[in-house]
Amino acid sequence: MTRHQPSKHDQILSVATERFGRDGYDTTKWADIAADVGVGPTALYHYFESKQHCLYVVLGRAIESFRTRFEASTAGQPDPLAALLTVMEDCFDLAPHDIMQLRVVVAEQGRLSVQRTSPREEEAREAALARARELRLAWVMFLEHAMEHGSIPADDPRLLARAILGLYTSIWGWYRPNGVLPLPRVADFFIDRVLVLVGLTPDAARELRMTA
Amino acid sequence: MTRHQPSKHDQILSVATERFGRDGYDTTKWADIAADVGVGPTALYHYFESKQHCLYVVLGRAIESFRTRFEASTAGQPDPLAALLTVMEDCFDLAPHDIMQLRVVVAEQGRLSVQRTSPREEEAREAALARARELRLAWVMFLEHAMEHGSIPADDPRLLARAILGLYTSIWGWYRPNGVLPLPRVADFFIDRVLVLVGLTPDAARELRMTA
Repeated sequence: MTRHQPSKHDQILSVATERFGRDGYDTTKWADIAADVGVGPTALYHYFESKQHCLYVVLGRAIESFRTRFEASTAGQPDPLAALLTVMEDCFDLAPHDIMQLRVVVAEQGRLSVQRTSPREEEAREAALARARELRLAWVMFLEHAMEHGSIPADDPRLLARAILGLYTSIWGWYRPNGVLPLPRVADFFIDRVLVLVGLTPDAARELRMTA
Repeated sequence: MTRHQPSKHDQILSVATERFGRDGYDTTKWADIAADVGVGPTALYHYFESKQHCLYVVLGRAIESFRTRFEASTAGQPDPLAALLTVMEDCFDLAPHDIMQLRVVVAEQGRLSVQRTSPREEEAREAALARARELRLAWVMFLEHAMEHGSIPADDPRLLARAILGLYTSIWGWYRPNGVLPLPRVADFFIDRVLVLVGLTPDAARELRMTA
């Protein structure tokens, strides 16, 4: 297998993300995913125990990729406000497949809170929840550092991380790539809103964005 | 039937909300709801075509109740900022059943975007979507009025309504009535955040809350 050829496992995840995001999880049949990948439905069971198992892995991967991006954006950036701006700009630098991932996260996140009896499904569910906790914790630590540094007003970093993630995630429940609102306009609006959420005055938020 | 005795229809909705909110929609069996109401599963079909049909009605009712509350909070209040504060305080004045409704909305909202083939299910789905549009439109008109009145800075009222509703709704995905954070603390934090989202400076938001 070369680096340029995604594994069957990754192909399935990619196809499943597109199907779940476009048609909804319930509507998507396991057989549709198999057909898109070009294998028989039984072959899929070699990789995933069930459609539900596959969904948990899709969710875990999606959340994980946002933590990786978060860490890449903040690494080596000593100024917390410059780092926050970089993170937020990166959060809107999205390929169509990233947007699909986010749409699946918004639509199906409720399924993560329901325990499963199958050990393999339950393991994948817990892994996705662990990825969500890690992403939240990365934000909490970042905000805590920004507060200690005096870059943003001191407040509860846990509630603030919940607020930022909740506001950001909600966008993908209604945003559509071919809708009337272009992504840069949405980005512009929501980056400003995150800056005031963390405690910047509207003037300070504007200045930060102009000078960056 | 007296005013104090909820109809069977309303009893089913109430029981279904508790089950969906606590155990998740997928885990909940139609027979569990029937047992809680004290009727046989077939009797439920007199009121709802399916569990999915019942979910759409639960979602529509939940969203509708927030629009009714929104209108009651803003009616007869000429000052937009005072009205906004009243709305936001009302948004956290929640009985346990209201919180369950909100939890179902967060967890199952993704199902509203998937078309159904059954006419009765599809009708209930479209009705729930219409209630969501009405709630959003009530916010848009309120924010537009506040902008014209000069109470908050002019900006896109549609994106702002999306932001407020998205931030508010996200809370009920993680908030738990018996968790470590008491509801008044959560309310306090998020009401402040909505006031800065609409464009108030942190100082103006504090002053508004102190003088109200």
